[in-house]
Amino acid sequence: MPLIHVDLERELYESSADDISREIQQAQVDALGIVPDDLFHVFSPHDKGELRFDPGFGGVDRRSLVLIRIVMVHMYSVATKRDLYAAIVTRLGTLGIRPEDILISVTENGFEDWYAGRL
Amino acid sequence: MPLIHVDLERELYESSADDISREIQQAQVDALGIVPDDLFHVFSPHDKGELRFDPGFGGVDRRSLVLIRIVMVHMYSVATKRDLYAAIVTRLGTLGIRPEDILISVTENGFEDWYAGRL
Amino acid sequence: MPLIHVDLERELYESSADDISREIQQAQVDALGIVPDDLFHVFSPHDKGELRFDPGFGGVDRRSLVLIRIVMVHMYSVATKRDLYAAIVTRLGTLGIRPEDILISVTENGFEDWYAGRL
Repeated sequence: MPLIHVDLERELYESSADDISREIQQAQVDALGIVPDDLFHVFSPHDKGELRFDPGFGGVDRRSLVLIRIVMVHMYSVATKRDLYAAIVTRLGTLGIRPEDILISVTENGFEDWYAGRL
Repeated sequence: MPLIHVDLERELYESSADDISREIQQAQVDALGIVPDDLFHVFSPHDKGELRFDPGFGGVDRRSLVLIRIVMVHMYSVATKRDLYAAIVTRLGTLGIRPEDILISVTENGFEDWYAGRL
Repeated sequence: MPLIHVDLERELYESSADDISREIQQAQVDALGIVPDDLFHVFSPHDKGELRFDPGFGGVDRRSLVLIRIVMVHMYSVATKRDLYAAIVTRLGTLGIRPEDILISVTENGFEDWYAGRL
């Protein structure tokens, strides 16, 4: 049950939400080995001014912000997480989303920290 | 200071936010033993397409998504967490919200990770 | 890469988002020692009814809710966190935001839990 929350500009949301959702899900399937129907995505489209970032922090030429927050169980190795990031940015890149514009933040919890439709 | 964040369809928000808030709070009081006025709830109503889920993942007949994210101090047992989930889904069930449509995700932090109105 | 997410009333957002963003960032620079361009802020303006709180919990005279959620790497001492809270509420106080109305919640993760524009 990784939970995905995507904050992005409304324009990008309106043009590409289906594609973004599909590519993130495939990235999770490929990198984490989850089943394709283990899908919980929340999109928060933002108006101008709600997403704020520095255009050069870390030596990155950042022009927009696509924030992907992931909550998942503490069970994946560092290498697997890096594979996930690479898969996400590569796949979103095919949609014209620049790797530089993506910020991914993972928060971990335990199996006991989820309720997913039945006790 | 459990912090509750509810993402839900706008239609459900408009019809039932007061009821949902009251029932979640009572569930917290009953299961966690917090005082009733320890209440911090954020509602994010969503338009169609912003909440994405699979209608059958985990063998659950899911028709909508009511996401309840909880941030709370690491101090409750697994049994207490399960009691909380049961209390929430039972109480929201009385409002016509299907248990299958609810996703609960808990993230824990420490006492030192909160500021609640005074230093 | 502390990630800042501010939930606040839409009226306050519209009048003061630039100021709030600047003051929170300076508080981070002063208390955490981050560089000024390490800036990732998400604002979620809320309509009436979406932010719910008790006006007296904890003996605090609360009249509104400005929720500041911070995700940051587990590397700061308790004293540093308290310095951060103090810096934030002091600086937002200069904008007329009451310390009593602020709720700060920190969640920690690891260095490996971030992707910030390049692999």
